[in-house]
Amino acid sequence: MNKLDIQHARKHQKFMARAFMLAEQALDEDEVPVGAIIVKDDEIIGKGYNQVQRLNDPTAHAEILAISAACANIGEKYLSGCTMYVTLEPCPMCAGALVWSKIDRLVYGAQDARTGACGSLFNLAANQKLNHQAEVIQGIMEKDSEHLLKSFFAKRRK
Amino acid sequence: MNKLDIQHARKHQKFMARAFMLAEQALDEDEVPVGAIIVKDDEIIGKGYNQVQRLNDPTAHAEILAISAACANIGEKYLSGCTMYVTLEPCPMCAGALVWSKIDRLVYGAQDARTGACGSLFNLAANQKLNHQAEVIQGIMEKDSEHLLKSFFAKRRK
Repeated sequence: MNKLDIQHARKHQKFMARAFMLAEQALDEDEVPVGAIIVKDDEIIGKGYNQVQRLNDPTAHAEILAISAACANIGEKYLSGCTMYVTLEPCPMCAGALVWSKIDRLVYGAQDARTGACGSLFNLAANQKLNHQAEVIQGIMEKDSEHLLKSFFAKRRK
Repeated sequence: MNKLDIQHARKHQKFMARAFMLAEQALDEDEVPVGAIIVKDDEIIGKGYNQVQRLNDPTAHAEILAISAACANIGEKYLSGCTMYVTLEPCPMCAGALVWSKIDRLVYGAQDARTGACGSLFNLAANQKLNHQAEVIQGIMEKDSEHLLKSFFAKRRK
């Protein structure tokens, strides 16, 4: 890796660690542990973690809450110039929301073979049929996120 | 059509007319005119119309707002036994939300060749790869919804 690549990798690690803390918070609240943040000019402008159970709302995924929070924060309906860091590959709903938000970049951790819509089951976030394509980077803190999700589902099966 | 088909067609017309009124309300507020309602046991349990501009939120589509409202209303995170009536074919985000909600049926008006994810560009609401499939009925008040959308975009181009 050259110097710029190392800088990028460090930045991705740093911000994914913040998203991971939100996923841990979701776990503490007995929610599927997924956390997301949105970053603009190296500042976090929106956060979210899965709150489907608490809010009784199937749309209350980490990514949707983070997008709404970021847009409210900057007073704009587009997230151009922003990056989302999320611990799990977004589903079709969240990938669709990312396209509408016109976000520049999506960085995610673990892949989701069941409902992943950013490379696994579908490819919506960078789909040429849609009017916006985000750059997609996968695998940052992948094992940590997988481990967190597995521990949640193992606990729930007991 | 047999008697039961006529009854169903009348019911679909009646409820789509309510969704259409919400789309007209969106138009009055200079939003892309789309309206949605959710019906359970012949009662409307949730409503929404597009509020992307007003809320500065790219996730504030009629369908997402109607799902959140219906779930809050009945205190459940699933919409089993429910039908959504929406004037325009849902996009990937909204189709994904419908799958998560486990809704029984989706009835929509106009098709959306640009972003439609329930038969046009993608087929997500009844996709066998996902863990829930909604019944999809298309074409109720199709021309009215098309006309409303065209009048909005014609006005915006002026």
